[in-house]
Amino acid sequence: MVIVLKENPNPKQYENLLQWLESQHLEIHTSQGKHQKLLGLVGDTSVVDIDLILALDIVKEVKRIQEPYKNANRTFHPENTIIQVGDVKIGQDFCIMAGPCSVESEEQILEIAKRVKAAGANILRGGAFKPRTSPYAFQGLEGKGIELLLEAKAETGLPIVTEIMDLSQLDLFDDVDIIQVGARNMQNFRLLKELGTTQKPILLKRGLSSTLQELLMSAEYIMAGGNPNVILCERGIRTFETFTRNTLDLAAIPSLKELTHLPVIVDPSHATGKSRLVEPMAYAAAAAGADGLMIEVHNNPAYALCDGPQSLTPDAFDNLVQGVNHILPHAFRRQN
Amino acid sequence: MVIVLKENPNPKQYENLLQWLESQHLEIHTSQGKHQKLLGLVGDTSVVDIDLILALDIVKEVKRIQEPYKNANRTFHPENTIIQVGDVKIGQDFCIMAGPCSVESEEQILEIAKRVKAAGANILRGGAFKPRTSPYAFQGLEGKGIELLLEAKAETGLPIVTEIMDLSQLDLFDDVDIIQVGARNMQNFRLLKELGTTQKPILLKRGLSSTLQELLMSAEYIMAGGNPNVILCERGIRTFETFTRNTLDLAAIPSLKELTHLPVIVDPSHATGKSRLVEPMAYAAAAAGADGLMIEVHNNPAYALCDGPQSLTPDAFDNLVQGVNHILPHAFRRQN
Amino acid sequence: MVIVLKENPNPKQYENLLQWLESQHLEIHTSQGKHQKLLGLVGDTSVVDIDLILALDIVKEVKRIQEPYKNANRTFHPENTIIQVGDVKIGQDFCIMAGPCSVESEEQILEIAKRVKAAGANILRGGAFKPRTSPYAFQGLEGKGIELLLEAKAETGLPIVTEIMDLSQLDLFDDVDIIQVGARNMQNFRLLKELGTTQKPILLKRGLSSTLQELLMSAEYIMAGGNPNVILCERGIRTFETFTRNTLDLAAIPSLKELTHLPVIVDPSHATGKSRLVEPMAYAAAAAGADGLMIEVHNNPAYALCDGPQSLTPDAFDNLVQGVNHILPHAFRRQN
Amino acid sequence: MVIVLKENPNPKQYENLLQWLESQHLEIHTSQGKHQKLLGLVGDTSVVDIDLILALDIVKEVKRIQEPYKNANRTFHPENTIIQVGDVKIGQDFCIMAGPCSVESEEQILEIAKRVKAAGANILRGGAFKPRTSPYAFQGLEGKGIELLLEAKAETGLPIVTEIMDLSQLDLFDDVDIIQVGARNMQNFRLLKELGTTQKPILLKRGLSSTLQELLMSAEYIMAGGNPNVILCERGIRTFETFTRNTLDLAAIPSLKELTHLPVIVDPSHATGKSRLVEPMAYAAAAAGADGLMIEVHNNPAYALCDGPQSLTPDAFDNLVQGVNHILPHAFRRQN
Repeated sequence: MVIVLKENPNPKQYENLLQWLESQHLEIHTSQGKHQKLLGLVGDTSVVDIDLILALDIVKEVKRIQEPYKNANRTFHPENTIIQVGDVKIGQDFCIMAGPCSVESEEQILEIAKRVKAAGANILRGGAFKPRTSPYAFQGLEGKGIELLLEAKAETGLPIVTEIMDLSQLDLFDDVDIIQVGARNMQNFRLLKELGTTQKPILLKRGLSSTLQELLMSAEYIMAGGNPNVILCERGIRTFETFTRNTLDLAAIPSLKELTHLPVIVDPSHATGKSRLVEPMAYAAAAAGADGLMIEVHNNPAYALCDGPQSLTPDAFDNLVQGVNHILPHAFRRQN
Repeated sequence: MVIVLKENPNPKQYENLLQWLESQHLEIHTSQGKHQKLLGLVGDTSVVDIDLILALDIVKEVKRIQEPYKNANRTFHPENTIIQVGDVKIGQDFCIMAGPCSVESEEQILEIAKRVKAAGANILRGGAFKPRTSPYAFQGLEGKGIELLLEAKAETGLPIVTEIMDLSQLDLFDDVDIIQVGARNMQNFRLLKELGTTQKPILLKRGLSSTLQELLMSAEYIMAGGNPNVILCERGIRTFETFTRNTLDLAAIPSLKELTHLPVIVDPSHATGKSRLVEPMAYAAAAAGADGLMIEVHNNPAYALCDGPQSLTPDAFDNLVQGVNHILPHAFRRQN
Repeated sequence: MVIVLKENPNPKQYENLLQWLESQHLEIHTSQGKHQKLLGLVGDTSVVDIDLILALDIVKEVKRIQEPYKNANRTFHPENTIIQVGDVKIGQDFCIMAGPCSVESEEQILEIAKRVKAAGANILRGGAFKPRTSPYAFQGLEGKGIELLLEAKAETGLPIVTEIMDLSQLDLFDDVDIIQVGARNMQNFRLLKELGTTQKPILLKRGLSSTLQELLMSAEYIMAGGNPNVILCERGIRTFETFTRNTLDLAAIPSLKELTHLPVIVDPSHATGKSRLVEPMAYAAAAAGADGLMIEVHNNPAYALCDGPQSLTPDAFDNLVQGVNHILPHAFRRQN
Repeated sequence: MVIVLKENPNPKQYENLLQWLESQHLEIHTSQGKHQKLLGLVGDTSVVDIDLILALDIVKEVKRIQEPYKNANRTFHPENTIIQVGDVKIGQDFCIMAGPCSVESEEQILEIAKRVKAAGANILRGGAFKPRTSPYAFQGLEGKGIELLLEAKAETGLPIVTEIMDLSQLDLFDDVDIIQVGARNMQNFRLLKELGTTQKPILLKRGLSSTLQELLMSAEYIMAGGNPNVILCERGIRTFETFTRNTLDLAAIPSLKELTHLPVIVDPSHATGKSRLVEPMAYAAAAAGADGLMIEVHNNPAYALCDGPQSLTPDAFDNLVQGVNHILPHAFRRQN
């Protein structure tokens, strides 16, 4: 951490600052420039609140040199994290999570589960609790939806991933294999903390306006509680472009692989909001070195009204998986 | 709502769509253009999920003409909503909420409460539960913090506003006058729903990447549950600019006053993240027609390490309130 | 185009509007809703200035249904545009433009030209006029730089692409094969117009905050003047993320291929600003169906101070081209 | 400037870096941390290209401590710049530039000029060269438009400001009092350089996605050439919000006043794109300490089709000026 002082700092305040920094067990290196003095801090600065120092009258700027996350930091954990879910080793095997936006009926979820398994998906996704912008929109089958997912799991053997919206729902997730934290809950810190007390794999989606560092700080919330099983998911960020629903940030894949040892998957369905863009973005994510994909698939094109514009038919999904499998052997692999 | 069809739509799918729209009690007006057909829908389209229609193969675009919120919509409720809290009529009187970022001690909160009351604040703010990006940062005094706020309320007569982070905390807020929903929880729909079942005034902060329409949809969640007492708060949105923490969107004030009848207040402290920008932004917000301000004030410049860079001293706050009071008689007033 | 009128429009103004629309040779379809009247306009609406209609007191909203570009629009030109430059058919063959950020010396550009040609590049890039944020930074060798590029072209047979910054420089570009218009000049409309009077292939980079539609409108400026040879280039847009210099929007590839018949290439070097992210993003762009890449390569790792952090060494570029060649046979291909 | 090295830097490369830095006349202070070494550089770092250093293999990060602009920097020029145009001292007097979006006819510009002068404007604005997104839209009267502005100036005594689009037009601006550089040209560096060779006051608009630092670097381009007469203009930045055309960043006013000594004015017409938002944003800008406003006014409500939705009628402008005059005595004033 580097602290830049204003010109001619008040000597008493400067003395106070030095004392306080030393009380934090930080070693201080001073450089006197023409217009300002720099303090270089050496030691564990992750506990130092940057805003506190910025508040001081004598301070012009504070710049963090070391990332403020530890458990999630590749510097301290160079090996890739591998999370086993059923037979899938996430972070090692390429993982494809597929299924409908919402669980709607037993027939629907069983049918889709069989189709996506046959096509090559290794995890079943499906929404039971649905975060909807409008209070008047369908909010999901809730507990019943989770029951149907478990039925599909029993039938197909596919592990399941589904979204939690509030920590009061946690009991219902006992048999869920991966708990998803949605983009809107990425900074629901109480929920993250609670999930940190379990050992469940957590699929943590990047918030719509979150930086990579914030995503990693949210992962750190879970990990600091003792749960190392975090899977990161890039799902698009909000920009001024309106043709796509969000802007899928695929450079986040190699960037995150550099910053952290956690697996990184990509959800092109929500990012683009248009089913015809899902296939090319899935290919791109695979090529860029993602550890997996999350894809929406619906099974009833005749009654497509029940499904979002980002969903593929099972046939289109078949095609997508085949294409991805062609690309995977040639995908980018990070060298440590 | 206007539906634009692709060229040469499949006749069977077109027939299905027409039937489905009619089953939603919508009247349909058709216009045949050179390259596409338009369907103009008349009726209550707020229940129609725009994504469902977009999913249809034969549909090119869907455009909503009428806003999808009803309770919050000024079209249907032309009169300003006025929410009485203690002696303050929010939406009619100019309201100033002030206090520390975090409640830290009895001495601190009592001292600040007295100072901000003397300066002209009519509501006391203070954080008991603190949403912090880092799990290693101070998370607030929690229940104890609320007790201290209530003590300050008893001593000064100022109503209090403080942030809830999770619905499991709701019982602790029984005697809190205004419950704040923070920017990161603006789309915590379970929390919004639960708050809709109370009659408590809710201060709803705009999310960092939320549009005005999304803010109003979140207000609608609370109102649809039966709680009409929603106060909106602009607190900056995230952009590429890095000099300020966020970009304060002051055009949101007259825009929201046009779209909705709810009161609109502004938080320049969090938006800018720099205490020296708070005063000019407070003046600007008042001039643009805001119904109030939320300002961070801290009382211990000697130990400023305990407070963020966006906090003013009580003396600076005195000065700010006087400046705002000079501007208020000349502020913009919306004409209905 | 759909015009939504406010409730109870002034009859005289309404009459005026209808007359004016008819004078524009537009056919009008009227739908009366509960709260507002819609006018659906049929005909050539590309000449109608949407802002003019929005200005009318009686108008609530105007929504364009048809894209306002014609020459660049795939609807009217379903076949891919193919632009021959030397032996390369851009839009059909995969094209790799590579070379240094700036031309620095004869030795440098000749050496790099040979290396990138050997590695598989089919076009040589190099900056002669450099747009630099700071007036104190190196601004390029200018005319001399173009001469050196032409020398490298003579030596290697590679066609060259280099950036123009102002139309006063146009004469110097007589023997340049492709003229690049940089992101900062995407809306330099005088320059676009002038380039429209030539038949030179133009590489048009997307502006840092430009929508896809604006990019296509800028292409339309060139094409409307009679020059159909426009190559579009995605090079990252500006967002709040700070780890990468910009956010590369790879969904722009299939989106643009849907909207337009023009070739689309990707520049991962400028987008990310970090050389170690260039390879994965190049793979991703190829997989998503790009028509080509533009890559910065420098030749002197020992004296890397002369080059930007987004440049690869020739060896790294070799490796990148091989990787891309593995992916290309499996890349996404748009079906018309 | 602070350079953070990677762990265990190659000793030879480290030695090279030190030598190069010393050759730039920079003094170097070294701090050895647990995981990395810091180099603090003292001296004139404005000439150091941050990207060059970032390119080195041994460098993890480079952070600039001092702003890279000198002429525009308040640190080195603490006094406000005052630019006299006719009778108006911009930077001292509050200045109101008003007039039509486009000059359309002699009658129109004379009529508006008289009206805005009577209402209190002290500078006349009007577009002769119009940057239009669409090649099919009206592009302005060009040279004829400037003649008409000069006529209006002769008639009313108001100095005039109008936009240049390309440096080939410069001769036509001989008698123009203030040359405007539009947002799209903020980084047209050739144009900026050329304007730096004149002594004309330049109104420099912030680009749609430009940071404040970039705006100041563009001002530096003009000033480095010898022209100190730069007026900065905030006119909204691009965000995801769609209700307003852009997001007016009013915190830019006190931020710029802190960073630079140049005058700062605000254009609420273009920023919001809606005439009914212009008045409240003008009040807010005045309250926040702006040095002036730029406002679009049109004179023919009956034929409003000729003007954009952001234009006020002369009566609304009268009202706005009166409101602003009430606020000005109470506006925020920066204390040095």
